[in-house]
Amino acid sequence: VNPSRTALPGAVGHPAATHGPVRVVGTGLLGASIGMALRAGGVDVVLVDPSRTTVLLARDVGAGRLPQADEAEPVLVVVAAPPDVTADVVLAELAAHPHAVVTDVASVKASVLAAVRSGGGDLRRYVGSHPMAGSERSGPTAARPDLFVGRPWVVAGTPDSAAGAVLAVRTLATDVGATPVLLDARVHDEAVALVSHLPQIAASLVAARLRQADPAALDLAGQGLRDVTRIAASDPALWTSILAANAGAVAPVLRALRDDLDVLVEALERTERAAAAEQVAGGALGALAATIAAGNAGAARIPGKHGGARRDYDVVTVLVPDQPGELARLLGDMGTAGINLEELAIEHAPAQAVGLAGLSVLRGLGGRLETELSARGWRVAG
Amino acid sequence: VNPSRTALPGAVGHPAATHGPVRVVGTGLLGASIGMALRAGGVDVVLVDPSRTTVLLARDVGAGRLPQADEAEPVLVVVAAPPDVTADVVLAELAAHPHAVVTDVASVKASVLAAVRSGGGDLRRYVGSHPMAGSERSGPTAARPDLFVGRPWVVAGTPDSAAGAVLAVRTLATDVGATPVLLDARVHDEAVALVSHLPQIAASLVAARLRQADPAALDLAGQGLRDVTRIAASDPALWTSILAANAGAVAPVLRALRDDLDVLVEALERTERAAAAEQVAGGALGALAATIAAGNAGAARIPGKHGGARRDYDVVTVLVPDQPGELARLLGDMGTAGINLEELAIEHAPAQAVGLAGLSVLRGLGGRLETELSARGWRVAG
Repeated sequence: VNPSRTALPGAVGHPAATHGPVRVVGTGLLGASIGMALRAGGVDVVLVDPSRTTVLLARDVGAGRLPQADEAEPVLVVVAAPPDVTADVVLAELAAHPHAVVTDVASVKASVLAAVRSGGGDLRRYVGSHPMAGSERSGPTAARPDLFVGRPWVVAGTPDSAAGAVLAVRTLATDVGATPVLLDARVHDEAVALVSHLPQIAASLVAARLRQADPAALDLAGQGLRDVTRIAASDPALWTSILAANAGAVAPVLRALRDDLDVLVEALERTERAAAAEQVAGGALGALAATIAAGNAGAARIPGKHGGARRDYDVVTVLVPDQPGELARLLGDMGTAGINLEELAIEHAPAQAVGLAGLSVLRGLGGRLETELSARGWRVAG
Repeated sequence: VNPSRTALPGAVGHPAATHGPVRVVGTGLLGASIGMALRAGGVDVVLVDPSRTTVLLARDVGAGRLPQADEAEPVLVVVAAPPDVTADVVLAELAAHPHAVVTDVASVKASVLAAVRSGGGDLRRYVGSHPMAGSERSGPTAARPDLFVGRPWVVAGTPDSAAGAVLAVRTLATDVGATPVLLDARVHDEAVALVSHLPQIAASLVAARLRQADPAALDLAGQGLRDVTRIAASDPALWTSILAANAGAVAPVLRALRDDLDVLVEALERTERAAAAEQVAGGALGALAATIAAGNAGAARIPGKHGGARRDYDVVTVLVPDQPGELARLLGDMGTAGINLEELAIEHAPAQAVGLAGLSVLRGLGGRLETELSARGWRVAG
């Protein structure tokens, strides 16, 4: 085990408030990451997974221990199983451990709750949850104890939930460094339909249009296309189960999108007909402008990475020789100037021994940074 | 003028092959950047703009000079006017300078060509073009002589074009550091409909859905939503003229997207009905999986930033204290280890004095980087 994994920022690594043993059922990325974070806080974590290989890997990365023959009853059970089997596993765990609080981490909440209810599960002890964290990689080898640091962790209690059960799940979230957010299961599902499932679908639909594209067209691709389609590389099996479990919340969002799309297509067709008749389709142009303006308004509402309002940065672009050490020297000069870097974009010019570094700094600091870097011999491009 | 602007990588800054005087009509971001890059290669550039302020600013940033009373005839005219007036300006320049080659840099090509043709312009001397470069900022103060370095520059000749006219525009592209790509105007317009206009519309439509969203939902937003909607902040007036000018190529792409969306909505509705009846809608699940898989296939075709195939990187995540100089020290240690950084993602954990740096390095180097950084005391998170 890498010793660096035990010294972690913030809440993770401090003594945890959660009482063990905690039983983690399903030791993939999420389950193993929860185990590692709780272990860092000194909690006794027991690992269970239908796959022997997966559970042994999780143990080896430091996520917890295997159950003993005379295993003590768990205080808390965390079900981190695939979404389509989550409700069944929750029901089995509620039945097998009649005094434990049981939570799950599936990305859709109302359908799991409904299945636990209709399966006769004890709703006083079941509180669903959803940590808003993940990775492009999966499995216990991708697990990280800091996966949840600073992320929202939705806790979806119900009127049936015992206060102690909700508190146990909130405490779990806090112990692993996350920020608990109390939301009703249905409100949660509508929220993730909008902020997670809709962008996934849009990225997939745009990328799907590229399957038959002329390679010459793809050679013209810029950063815009790359950003819009980055998440299109997601796992089809995982997303099928997520979308199926949240069909009721996703469908209305997609129907609303389709209505907007219909208006746009109709406006483009009117523009085309007007152009053929050498006229200007005034109303159609208004519809095109309204589409882009509506996007401006919506995008402006997305909070910044730090939480709170979206930050405006000054961006200074600097030419950097594409060699080890040059970027470090640039950032070292920034440090000497006492200016903190907020974001960094690196772009390589093909077949040129140079890259462009876009340095984002707090608003108002750009001018000084430009002066400081120029004085130190850097080529500031704008 | 910043002296750093005259020392530039690659082709820019070397003696240019373009013969002057070059007349740049429209001295916003693109026109002024072309002027600066040509000036760096020693070309005589004459600046013209309907706005006196704009042309004086362009001169002051080093994009060229104002016309003289006894101005020599230009060899090349570059029209960098707004898209909706481009054809009229091209026609006027062809008439006013009967020996000059005239090009334009508008982002849509077939409609400009048709208007120049129907306006009786000399098609031997007019060759449209489109540099695939831009910035979120506009105007001559945002101009950069390296704006086009390493970017594709579409040159849309026709059977009517004189060979010398096509060569002059290709040479212009090469002189400013771009890579000329010869494409028919209609093929170009279909290509940008797919790789530029479609992602813009998708980003705007997704962002538009956020206008009425519950703030609690927006607080759950992650990197996926941010990436998909980044370009949704674009200028409505500019995009209205781009979409209107390319309506004929954009409409079929959007209709195809709508067909895919219809299949998806129908599959979600069937899934919902099946769930209500406590059944599994097998065929519907297949349609959901097919949507995501089609996106995988399309996304895999986008070339990497360096051109050629999309690169697979190893990503090593390191905890970095959020203080000036720490990131530089990290990258300095990478440089000492002789490992070049390909991409860098920085994430701040709210209310924590630490950030996560995601270091992308060429595939196969991740393990060594992790070892080297751990040995130097860095906390490698995964």
